[in-house]
Amino acid sequence: MLNFTVGPVMSDEAVLSVGAEQVPYFRTQEFSEIMLENEYLIKKFAGAAEDARAVFITGSGTAAMEAAIVNAFTSRDKLLIINGGSFGQRFVELCQIHKIPFSEIRPAFGKGVTADQLQQFSGRGYTALVVNIHETSTGVCYDLDLLSRFCKEENLFFTVDAISAFLADPIDMQKQQIDMMITGSQKALACPPGISVIVLSKRAVDRVYGNDPHCMYLDLRSALRNGDRGQTPFTPAVGILLQINKRLKMIHDAGGAEAEIRKTASIAEDFRSALKENRLPLEIVSQSLSNAVTPLHPLHASAYDIFLTLKDEYQIWVCPNGGDMKEKVFRVGHIGCLTVEDNKTLIDALIDMKNRNLL
Amino acid sequence: MLNFTVGPVMSDEAVLSVGAEQVPYFRTQEFSEIMLENEYLIKKFAGAAEDARAVFITGSGTAAMEAAIVNAFTSRDKLLIINGGSFGQRFVELCQIHKIPFSEIRPAFGKGVTADQLQQFSGRGYTALVVNIHETSTGVCYDLDLLSRFCKEENLFFTVDAISAFLADPIDMQKQQIDMMITGSQKALACPPGISVIVLSKRAVDRVYGNDPHCMYLDLRSALRNGDRGQTPFTPAVGILLQINKRLKMIHDAGGAEAEIRKTASIAEDFRSALKENRLPLEIVSQSLSNAVTPLHPLHASAYDIFLTLKDEYQIWVCPNGGDMKEKVFRVGHIGCLTVEDNKTLIDALIDMKNRNLL
Repeated sequence: MLNFTVGPVMSDEAVLSVGAEQVPYFRTQEFSEIMLENEYLIKKFAGAAEDARAVFITGSGTAAMEAAIVNAFTSRDKLLIINGGSFGQRFVELCQIHKIPFSEIRPAFGKGVTADQLQQFSGRGYTALVVNIHETSTGVCYDLDLLSRFCKEENLFFTVDAISAFLADPIDMQKQQIDMMITGSQKALACPPGISVIVLSKRAVDRVYGNDPHCMYLDLRSALRNGDRGQTPFTPAVGILLQINKRLKMIHDAGGAEAEIRKTASIAEDFRSALKENRLPLEIVSQSLSNAVTPLHPLHASAYDIFLTLKDEYQIWVCPNGGDMKEKVFRVGHIGCLTVEDNKTLIDALIDMKNRNLL
Repeated sequence: MLNFTVGPVMSDEAVLSVGAEQVPYFRTQEFSEIMLENEYLIKKFAGAAEDARAVFITGSGTAAMEAAIVNAFTSRDKLLIINGGSFGQRFVELCQIHKIPFSEIRPAFGKGVTADQLQQFSGRGYTALVVNIHETSTGVCYDLDLLSRFCKEENLFFTVDAISAFLADPIDMQKQQIDMMITGSQKALACPPGISVIVLSKRAVDRVYGNDPHCMYLDLRSALRNGDRGQTPFTPAVGILLQINKRLKMIHDAGGAEAEIRKTASIAEDFRSALKENRLPLEIVSQSLSNAVTPLHPLHASAYDIFLTLKDEYQIWVCPNGGDMKEKVFRVGHIGCLTVEDNKTLIDALIDMKNRNLL
């Protein structure tokens, strides 16, 4: 199967071969060194400062989203949440569950956030801004520099869920004064799912240590303390952490985050121009694209039927949407171990479906 | 490296080869069917009733412990916790964090719980009993039948953390009227760490649906609802779930849980008799052993030094203890893909260390 979803994505053969090895015992100096290297490289690729920290949580991206919310914020905060899709909505629900005051900005479908929208919330006592910088469900990538400037002006604690943007779109925690950045193993890190990552600025670390999350598993204080010596409070997904180590070193050797982002951008551009050239009846629904994904609205067919036909008849996975968008939108991912030849295979399949009146 | 720890343990080659494959997209009928098969086989091996459920959480065993506590209990409960080591202590701390009333039974080091100890808590308004049936930190396996009888007599909701006991020691949820059973992927399931499992009786499912855990990631209501159709609320560790599927089917084909338990018991017996035969200066510190592990106190040397020497000079991992027990106790596991030949390799190494005056 050829995998164009937005996670799990395809891994490099070298990463897969780590998955075939016996998982080592981990309460050792050897494993600690690997974890410290993971922290160092993640911080480097995120543009984090030297006094920043990165913690690795065994769990889905939602575990990291919830950990970020309960460890950094309390009922004394007032959050501004950009809610433009199902992952923005998830932050809203997390604040409801944990009784953290918030307001929402709800951009129109497929659209980003404007300076005017932000200005309405200026000087009104907000303490933090929370955004899924690439709202993976709709394929909208918000303007990170615009949000960053607003956070600097308003002195907001800036939390960026970059789950599918990290290593796909440019992010620099220091330049953009990001306090917390979230990502996961199965997006542009292109490892199996099971690990999520939170990078914390010094200001975020201080917040965490001054707070009580009322949850043992998601307590970042113990994650930070254990992480000091390259360990985790509980048995982690050791195998996936070793795969992440392999992958991070490969990215480093190939030129770092910038080179990786350029590669993803070129795969995305290649697909988008082929789409246009071949006049396929598929409309790009995001007005602010990430390099990670192209969200498509089929003009004449059901999006979910296209997903099923590609899977069952062409051995290709694209990414279906859920809820309201199920019949209207599907997504083509550009992260993971994909090539322009893979793009051609997908475009050829779509052309064939068009000729069969299935598109 | 030869791995005698209690997790991660060694996996079968067939399980490892699944780890080398690309991780598939999972919001599909194909993956749902695998998950429903996982649920069916886990329930079967746990002796669960037809109306019981099993859910798979992407997380460490502690994630499942916390999920069990916050989903099944409230401040209106009164729990009796068997606290004989660091995992019993973890249940105590979870109840403290979540403000669930509890009392503790604290058995002496290396000892089980007696009927007399239990009787002191009879008729005193307890609603549930919580036990790590094999307290992995000390190698003490409590008397499941004794605890089960007490729960039946007192009508207690019976929660059994069987993390290292499931598939190593006999457990039958129906016969022993167990309401919740917890285990993890990296113990006798012998897969990489990253997935924990909770099996729930009908009574437990009803409790969960009547409760609000105030946590999104550990909310078992959404896990149960999604599990109805073989799915999970969030992206799970898909690769590990596929490895679990391979392993469960192998156990099934080789005679089921009973055959697997017999195999582990024979590995444990072989090691323990070799220990005796060779008069090694290692004292078994548990008076109530599980098949999963043998906890050993070295008479003349530091337990942690033995761990380090075996690792660095013999390429063998045994399992060190933490905290107070670090210098006094190490553990030899019998779960995972081990053979009597592997036992001989370890015994030979220990004999050699004795000859070198390192034991």
